[in-house]
Amino acid sequence: MIEREFIELLKQMPLHAGARGLCDDAAVIPIGDKYLIFTKDMMVQGVHYFNDSDPQDVAWKLLAVNLSDLAAKGASPIGVMLGFTLGEDDWDKSFLLGFEAALKHYRVKLLGGDTVSSQQHIISLTAIGMSVHDVPSRSGAQDGDILYVSGPLGDAYAGYELIKSGRYEIEDPLVMAFNRPKAQVELGQNIAQSVNAMMDISDGLLIDAQRMADASGLAISLILDSLPLSQNYRQKYGDNLDSIINAATWGDDYQLLCAAPKDIKLPMNMRAIGIFTQGKGLGLNYNDKRIMLPFSLGYEHSE
Amino acid sequence: MIEREFIELLKQMPLHAGARGLCDDAAVIPIGDKYLIFTKDMMVQGVHYFNDSDPQDVAWKLLAVNLSDLAAKGASPIGVMLGFTLGEDDWDKSFLLGFEAALKHYRVKLLGGDTVSSQQHIISLTAIGMSVHDVPSRSGAQDGDILYVSGPLGDAYAGYELIKSGRYEIEDPLVMAFNRPKAQVELGQNIAQSVNAMMDISDGLLIDAQRMADASGLAISLILDSLPLSQNYRQKYGDNLDSIINAATWGDDYQLLCAAPKDIKLPMNMRAIGIFTQGKGLGLNYNDKRIMLPFSLGYEHSE
Repeated sequence: MIEREFIELLKQMPLHAGARGLCDDAAVIPIGDKYLIFTKDMMVQGVHYFNDSDPQDVAWKLLAVNLSDLAAKGASPIGVMLGFTLGEDDWDKSFLLGFEAALKHYRVKLLGGDTVSSQQHIISLTAIGMSVHDVPSRSGAQDGDILYVSGPLGDAYAGYELIKSGRYEIEDPLVMAFNRPKAQVELGQNIAQSVNAMMDISDGLLIDAQRMADASGLAISLILDSLPLSQNYRQKYGDNLDSIINAATWGDDYQLLCAAPKDIKLPMNMRAIGIFTQGKGLGLNYNDKRIMLPFSLGYEHSE
Repeated sequence: MIEREFIELLKQMPLHAGARGLCDDAAVIPIGDKYLIFTKDMMVQGVHYFNDSDPQDVAWKLLAVNLSDLAAKGASPIGVMLGFTLGEDDWDKSFLLGFEAALKHYRVKLLGGDTVSSQQHIISLTAIGMSVHDVPSRSGAQDGDILYVSGPLGDAYAGYELIKSGRYEIEDPLVMAFNRPKAQVELGQNIAQSVNAMMDISDGLLIDAQRMADASGLAISLILDSLPLSQNYRQKYGDNLDSIINAATWGDDYQLLCAAPKDIKLPMNMRAIGIFTQGKGLGLNYNDKRIMLPFSLGYEHSE
């Protein structure tokens, strides 16, 4: 079964109000005057990372992608629960080295977890965060809101290509961008009170912008000329329409996407890239012309 | 790596105070005047269930084993996060049927989760519960405390043997006892304030009683004659020493174990089976004699 079908069936389960209809990146439960935020992301060997990926990087990325979901809700991370398939001693030890470094980097604590044995490595993390403010959803964009992205796109793609080529330095910033993405935890906390909707880009800007518009019952019109490409990406792949589309359909940069009213002041690095309007669907504009949608808007989880 | 080694390494990670040193079944975080309780249990195809197990039963058991950990903390379940490896349509649909039935049975709500694709089925659940009272740990047993077990042992073993034999009815109560264990949620809530320590039996009474004693810095002396065997188990396997040991090294009954002072009144079904004393280790008594420990005290998670 593909993910979309499965999620449609999951929506028929008894859902907690905090599940937000399974249309958001995280669940939100009010406890007293606080909100607890829960998110879960798994990684599978050969799917989410290469068979020969450095286990330290796998651990780092697993934590970062979960914290990225918390960042999109403006939450402060509290702790994580680890689900781990036991394997070779070296791999497991190396994973824990990277996990420890990432926990320390993000100042997050381990709460517990479970280990199992299996043939294939599958690692699961549940991250728990807290907020004292209302928690932005994916569905709160308003007619006339501006769509912002939190920073340049393309480094993770360039890193991925370098790694695939086999000729690269571990320390190369592009390789690091792919292997050890940065979760925008502080930024998310800073802007959560100013935005009407927020999510992280994990499957590609185009598909995720469309998801935010769909969830909000609006159309989104993107100005592709405004998309910020990273300097390295521009140097390698140019800044023509194809290279913009390529960067905008690639998810591993883990930038934040948010919808905010025109007159709200956001931090300098937030780039305005589109506008929400009445209607439905995604519109792409380039050189002042409406253009066709590409075949794929981003990564769609399949069977 | 085997689980024990991995957990020793995990203990060197930055641990949340609520992780209780990774020596408990669940993590406990105080939020205002309440406690939130987190637990995570995974199930792997071919390890925790048969390749041809009914996916409805797999779903039920996954929820029950997680809720059993919450029960051992006296918590009321709030919701669960599901991690699911997508597979065949029929299997996935059947899993969700069972999952829905189990959620409704236990009045638990789905909060969210993640799906991935992989060759092997691995399913992960994080369960979240709440308590307004102090949460019993595994390590609070006191010198002189009595060890209690919440109910008869052996049905799950008898069910497992029936299933292995291939000649059984799905509706057979023993088969159900193995396939759809009962989490003692209400009982756990009722007694949590009366006990000094509590845990669920998931790997076998002997090994889990020893773990409670170790965590509490005490010795535990068990009276094997007092162990309650289920009527069905007794009829099939007798109530001699071998059959008692067999039932006491089998974990799938998911009864609760607790330590409480001698003068505390517990519900009728709680059976006194041992006493905590100064010292270290597990002692077994049968027919008023100290007997040797069996080779295996229960299920130990290996590579």
